[in-house]
Amino acid sequence: MIRVILLGGGNLASHLATAFFKSSKIELVQIYNRTLSNIKEKENLVPITDSLEELLDAHIYVIATSDDAIEKLANKIKSKNGLVVHTSGAIDQSVLQNERKGVFYPLQSFTKGVKVSFENIPFCIETDKDDEFILLETLAKALSNKVYPMDSTQRKKLHTAAVFVNNFVNYMYSIGEDICEENRIPFEVLYPLIQETANKIQNLSPKEAQTGPAKRKDKKTLALHKKELNTEQKIIYQLLSEAISNNR
Amino acid sequence: MIRVILLGGGNLASHLATAFFKSSKIELVQIYNRTLSNIKEKENLVPITDSLEELLDAHIYVIATSDDAIEKLANKIKSKNGLVVHTSGAIDQSVLQNERKGVFYPLQSFTKGVKVSFENIPFCIETDKDDEFILLETLAKALSNKVYPMDSTQRKKLHTAAVFVNNFVNYMYSIGEDICEENRIPFEVLYPLIQETANKIQNLSPKEAQTGPAKRKDKKTLALHKKELNTEQKIIYQLLSEAISNNR
Repeated sequence: MIRVILLGGGNLASHLATAFFKSSKIELVQIYNRTLSNIKEKENLVPITDSLEELLDAHIYVIATSDDAIEKLANKIKSKNGLVVHTSGAIDQSVLQNERKGVFYPLQSFTKGVKVSFENIPFCIETDKDDEFILLETLAKALSNKVYPMDSTQRKKLHTAAVFVNNFVNYMYSIGEDICEENRIPFEVLYPLIQETANKIQNLSPKEAQTGPAKRKDKKTLALHKKELNTEQKIIYQLLSEAISNNR
Repeated sequence: MIRVILLGGGNLASHLATAFFKSSKIELVQIYNRTLSNIKEKENLVPITDSLEELLDAHIYVIATSDDAIEKLANKIKSKNGLVVHTSGAIDQSVLQNERKGVFYPLQSFTKGVKVSFENIPFCIETDKDDEFILLETLAKALSNKVYPMDSTQRKKLHTAAVFVNNFVNYMYSIGEDICEENRIPFEVLYPLIQETANKIQNLSPKEAQTGPAKRKDKKTLALHKKELNTEQKIIYQLLSEAISNNR
């Protein structure tokens, strides 16, 4: 069994704690958080602490805090022999100044209270040395079927790509909802189209799947649509339509 | 049984033909298309023709052509007594100058060769008179569980909203794919996130579901991300981030 200590009390830490605890291949030794109340609910499952001096020994220390807190916290556990990994998409591995270090990044958007099945969540992992990689890979594979080796440069690029396919896509949904609400149309009318759009690209490259008036350079419909939109929507419509028309 | 004649030989017409043919509540009487070769494959199922003079009688004539062809074609069948409907999201009902007219708009993105189950595809329908509405509603309900009455103004707004949640969302996927390819990251790493983003808003409004650095006004990450992007990506990143930061 891999002995793991988890550091952090937020959303991701909470989901990871449950998954570590459930896995037969992992022994979740301890959870640390600066504020004890945030991890109080885990107390029945595993020893918790708010003191780094009480930190036990483990094979892997998983830091699942906010990006800003990673470096400082990692520095404070430099005396530990285990592999110290962070879970951030945006932070370079090199901010960890620990002897043995790595990255253990699950690519998903976690919502508090919404159950997570890690099985299908991609884990992007990175270490300096081969034996550390094997250890971290074993941990990742205990949770997920999808484990990808990825260096810090790639991971940062991936994190940026994730903003487009998650945050910006959700904003497009949001504009769709606004238009529906303003016109007393139930937003649920768009659910099947949203679902199909997401499904389609698992069989077809998004470039091949691109349709619509901008792709067809259908100026008549583009002009008609623009008349229906408010100023901010129009600016976004214009920019994205031009990008689609020009590039594809 | 509702007697239906289908006019058109494109993508949507082909999918509708199959669905009409399969339904026990619908008798697909005939398919018309200007070019016979496009509907040749339906010949075994139902009589086909390329001559409007040979058009038979039916309760409903469904025009499933390109937007530009609707008005002209509808005018040519003005002598018919049946209800004449078009299937376009963008075209006003009033372009039909037929005695009995309506709109029968299935909101989905159809791909040639990809099987369609109409069951869950929303049909937005419109007629002038109540008895015509009942007839058209019966046709729609024979194919789908999701039938919405919607006037031409609402339908045009919905069509615009569909561009955001389908065409523009797909373009976001496309940028995600570009970033992955440029950095030798398999695009499939993003599939689960894409799926979760689409699933989430069926339980949570997109406004509530919005996350990310722009939403958090996390200037450090926004600046980091911009450094990773090419010029065109950066312009889109900047505009959408500003919109998210300002409005939500």
